[in-house]
Amino acid sequence: MRQSAEQEAVLAANEAFYRAFARRDLAAMDRLWAESAEVTCLHPGWGPCRGRDAVMESWAGILGNAEAPHIRCLRSQATIYGDVAVVVCYEAIEQSYLIATNLFVCEAGAWKLVHHQAGPLAAEPPEPEASGGPEHSRLH
Amino acid sequence: MRQSAEQEAVLAANEAFYRAFARRDLAAMDRLWAESAEVTCLHPGWGPCRGRDAVMESWAGILGNAEAPHIRCLRSQATIYGDVAVVVCYEAIEQSYLIATNLFVCEAGAWKLVHHQAGPLAAEPPEPEASGGPEHSRLH
Repeated sequence: MRQSAEQEAVLAANEAFYRAFARRDLAAMDRLWAESAEVTCLHPGWGPCRGRDAVMESWAGILGNAEAPHIRCLRSQATIYGDVAVVVCYEAIEQSYLIATNLFVCEAGAWKLVHHQAGPLAAEPPEPEASGGPEHSRLH
Repeated sequence: MRQSAEQEAVLAANEAFYRAFARRDLAAMDRLWAESAEVTCLHPGWGPCRGRDAVMESWAGILGNAEAPHIRCLRSQATIYGDVAVVVCYEAIEQSYLIATNLFVCEAGAWKLVHHQAGPLAAEPPEPEASGGPEHSRLH
């Protein structure tokens, strides 16, 4: 299935999130999170970080850690619900895999993160189906 | 902070989700998920269940398991982003805790689930702050 321009835009924002994460680029990470909408972040194993200050403080700690593992985003799929978009993707961190929910809202014409949750997978992601392109849907 | 009527409604839908889960009531669970909007469910450790049939099949398996542990929802907090609502809450499953993201859209006047992710916590949830009522915000 062909993706809509909106899905491409939100998947680009999702890629930018993982690029900032992999490069430990806190300034880029900061620009990706919403400025006015409420934000929450659920790092694996953690309780919720609520509000922009707490969320950015958590990223400063994670990205400032020289031992932080490399991360790659795999097989992201976007669903648009009006003014809100959800991306589900796998995260490959060295030899282990997580799965993530990333929630975006449109703010000043750009998709910005308002929520992230990542949690461990019990097994490696299955191989993608040969016929499977990115899934998408649109509520409105 | 006082909660809006919308927040109360979405938190009631979230409570109904955990009630259906705890009672292993598949018919109630089915009614809680959106009918027309795209749905996805990330059970702890699993890859994504995508689409209503796959999501309900996963719940049929979980709720049909006589060994399924009891579950309670704790400290749910709702954020409204226009026509979409996000609830973050803890899940107490016997002696362990998870944290969950539950995403709702308004469909035919009722908040319906479109996405669920739950993942393990590394520690027990902290005690709630004495001053802390449910947080809330509204984008529009």
